[in-house]
Amino acid sequence: PKKTDIKDKNDPYGNEPKRNPVLIPSSLKPYNAEPPSLLLTEQFLTPKDLFFVRNHLPVPVVDMKSYRLEIGIEGKNKLKLNIDELKKNFPKMYTASVVQCAGNRRSEMTKIKAVKGLNWNNAAISNASWAGATLNDVMNKAGIDLDKCSHKHIVFEGMDKGPEGSPYGASLPIELARQLKNDILIAYEMNGTELPRDHGYPVRVIIPGVVGARQVKWLNNIYLSNEESTCHWQRKDYKGFNASVDWHNVDFEKSEAIQQLPVISSICDPAEGTELESGAEEVTVKGYAWSGGGRAILRVDISADGGKTWMTADLQPTNQSLYKTWAWTLWEATVPLPANHGGKAELTCKAVDVSYNCQPDNVEGIWNLRGVLSNAWHRVNVKIPS
Amino acid sequence: PKKTDIKDKNDPYGNEPKRNPVLIPSSLKPYNAEPPSLLLTEQFLTPKDLFFVRNHLPVPVVDMKSYRLEIGIEGKNKLKLNIDELKKNFPKMYTASVVQCAGNRRSEMTKIKAVKGLNWNNAAISNASWAGATLNDVMNKAGIDLDKCSHKHIVFEGMDKGPEGSPYGASLPIELARQLKNDILIAYEMNGTELPRDHGYPVRVIIPGVVGARQVKWLNNIYLSNEESTCHWQRKDYKGFNASVDWHNVDFEKSEAIQQLPVISSICDPAEGTELESGAEEVTVKGYAWSGGGRAILRVDISADGGKTWMTADLQPTNQSLYKTWAWTLWEATVPLPANHGGKAELTCKAVDVSYNCQPDNVEGIWNLRGVLSNAWHRVNVKIPS
Ligand SMILES: [Mo]
Ligand SMILES: [Mo]
Repeated sequence: PKKTDIKDKNDPYGNEPKRNPVLIPSSLKPYNAEPPSLLLTEQFLTPKDLFFVRNHLPVPVVDMKSYRLEIGIEGKNKLKLNIDELKKNFPKMYTASVVQCAGNRRSEMTKIKAVKGLNWNNAAISNASWAGATLNDVMNKAGIDLDKCSHKHIVFEGMDKGPEGSPYGASLPIELARQLKNDILIAYEMNGTELPRDHGYPVRVIIPGVVGARQVKWLNNIYLSNEESTCHWQRKDYKGFNASVDWHNVDFEKSEAIQQLPVISSICDPAEGTELESGAEEVTVKGYAWSGGGRAILRVDISADGGKTWMTADLQPTNQSLYKTWAWTLWEATVPLPANHGGKAELTCKAVDVSYNCQPDNVEGIWNLRGVLSNAWHRVNVKIPS
Repeated sequence: PKKTDIKDKNDPYGNEPKRNPVLIPSSLKPYNAEPPSLLLTEQFLTPKDLFFVRNHLPVPVVDMKSYRLEIGIEGKNKLKLNIDELKKNFPKMYTASVVQCAGNRRSEMTKIKAVKGLNWNNAAISNASWAGATLNDVMNKAGIDLDKCSHKHIVFEGMDKGPEGSPYGASLPIELARQLKNDILIAYEMNGTELPRDHGYPVRVIIPGVVGARQVKWLNNIYLSNEESTCHWQRKDYKGFNASVDWHNVDFEKSEAIQQLPVISSICDPAEGTELESGAEEVTVKGYAWSGGGRAILRVDISADGGKTWMTADLQPTNQSLYKTWAWTLWEATVPLPANHGGKAELTCKAVDVSYNCQPDNVEGIWNLRGVLSNAWHRVNVKIPS
C-alpha cells in the first residue's frame, strides 16, 4: 500500500481518503500537500484532485444520518439542519473563490532564516467554484440578524478533533461577517458536485477573500460569541509579527489574527531551475495573482532581468466585479531575455490590486517566525543553454 | 503684499483666500501647499489652517444665494438643494477621515528619475472631522436607490473651472459607491465649523478611504452616468503604471483610475537631516500610518539601523472599527541607536494594515511617470554629534 493509503483502526489517521499521487506532500499525518505548480495555472478552476490540501487534524468520518449543522448563539439552543434541509430550504448560491494557506510560499522565508511550519512552495493556493446557502440566510433562519446582534465574533467549528477531543475552530470579527454575510457560503458543492472528504465533506464554510484557516471544513457548528474562537490556530498561530520577533520574545496576544490576505502573485511556469530551449531569445511566463478582501488584480508586471525593466502581463478576464474579485487572475507574458544573459536569467513577477497595494520587494522585510504572509516579488531562475 | 495674498480682477487667481504662512507651497497658481511635517502629527485632527491644500484650478467665489447642489441622473431634471435644505432635511452624520493626495511623497520618486507633478514631501495628507448628509440619504431624496440603479458610475462636479470653462470632476464606480453609500458624506463642516474656501466651501464630498482627487470640493453636481467622469484628472492622470512605462509609451486607457489607496506610513519627527543631541543613545520617532479602503493599521515597525532590526511602535488608539478605519493612526517609538553609528543613522518605518498589506521596500519598483502611490518604506537620515 502507498503511504497515503493507510487503513489502521488504532491510528487516528487510519481512515484518510485516497489522494492523487501527483500531489506533493509537506506532511502525511496530518496530510498536507500541494500540486506541482506547473499544473496549477492550467485551468481557472482547480480540479478537486489537484486542489491543495491543508489538514490540521485527521479527516473525520461523517455519519450522514446523524449529521446536523447547528446555528445559533453560544450556550443557547440552536437551529439544527440536516444536509437535505440545508440544500432545500435556502437559495443555492455560487461563487468562484480562492482558498490560500497563510503559509503559501513559506519555503522562501525558510531560506532567509528557519521558521516553524510546513515547507510550502508556491502552490498552497487553489481556486474552485463553490455552491451553498449564504451565511445570512442560515443565520436568519436561526432568528439572528447579523446587522443587529451585539456579539463581537462569529465562530465556526469543524468535526475534526485533536488528541484531547477539542475541535478545529476559527472565528471572524462580527464586522467582517456583516460585510461578507451575503458572500459567505455554507458550501456543500465544489466544482459542481459534493465536497471531497479532504475539502470538508459534507459542508465547509467559504469566506471569500479570507485566509484558508478560517474557512472551516467538516463544519457542524456556527455560533455568535463575545470571544474569538479559543482554538490554537486562532489565538496562537496565523498572526503576523515583525522580523525581529522570534520564539523567545513573541506575544501572540499582541497581534491580530490573519483574516483578509494581502496581494500576491507567483510564477508557476517555468518552474525554478528550468532549462529553456538552447538559444532562446524570449520566454513565456505564466502564473496567478490574487488579493484578499475582494480586491481585483489591476496589473501584473514581469521582468526577465531581475527587476530592471518590466512588462505588463496579459490578464485572463474573470468576469468578477472590481470590489468582489474572490477568484484568482491567471496571467501570461512573453518576455524578451536580456541580450547578455550569460546563460541564465531571473524572472520576477509582482502584482497590484484595485487599492494599488503592491508586493514587497524582498522576503527579508516581511520575514516572521511562523513564515506566513510570504508575498514578496516572486523570483524564478532559469537556464539558457547557448 | 505676500505672494499668496493677491487680489487682481484680471487674474483667475485674483481672489484666492488667505493662507497660513507656515504652509510650504509646491505651486502658487493653482495654490498647493503642505504643512511642515513636524507640525502634522502633533494632533489627531489637523487644524484647518494646517491642512494640506490641493487645488487643481482657481478657488471659486460662491454666491450662497444662488448656490444649489444638484442631484440626479445625467441629462435628466435633478433635485436641487440649497445649503439650508442640505443641512436641515437630512440627518447630520460625522466622520473623521483622511484626505491624501495621490502624489504624497512624490519627491522620493523624483530622486530616482524625473516625474511629472508637484514636488510633495510627506505632508500631502491630513486628517479632519467632517459632517454632512450621507450620499445615500441625498440620493434617496432624489428618488434614486443606489443598490438598484443600472448606471455604472457616479460623477461629482465642482464649481472650480479650467480656462475653457469645464469644471473639475471625478467619478466612482457604482459598486464602490454602493459599498460606501452610508459612509460618503456631502460635507458642509470641517472640524466643527464651515469648510474653509481652500477645502471646498460650501460643500465637498468626503469619500473615506479614497484618494483626495475624487473628493470633489466646491461640489454642485452629483449624477449617475454610464461613463466615467470625462475630466482630465479622471481619465488622463492619477493612474498607476509600471516603472518601464514613460511618456513615450503610456496609454492612460489601459490603467484603472486610482480610487482606494494602499497602505502608507511616514516619519514626521525627526525631519530629514535633523541633528540629534550630542551623544544621543536613542531617538523618539513619530509619524502617521494609514491605509485606504477602511483598513485599520495593525502595526508600524521602526528601525534605526536601516532595516536590519525592527521594533513595534506604540499606536495611538483611534476608536474606529477594524474595517472602517477612515482616520489615520498616529504612532511613536523610542528606538535605541546602533552602538557604532559613526555619527549618523537611517530611521525607517513601515506599516501593515488589517489585510496584512505592507509597504514596498524601495521606491525603484513602484516608480511611475506621474509619481503617484509613493508608499515605500520611509527613510529619514539623522546626525548624531559625538
Ligand atoms: Mo493555513
Ligand atoms: Mo491628488
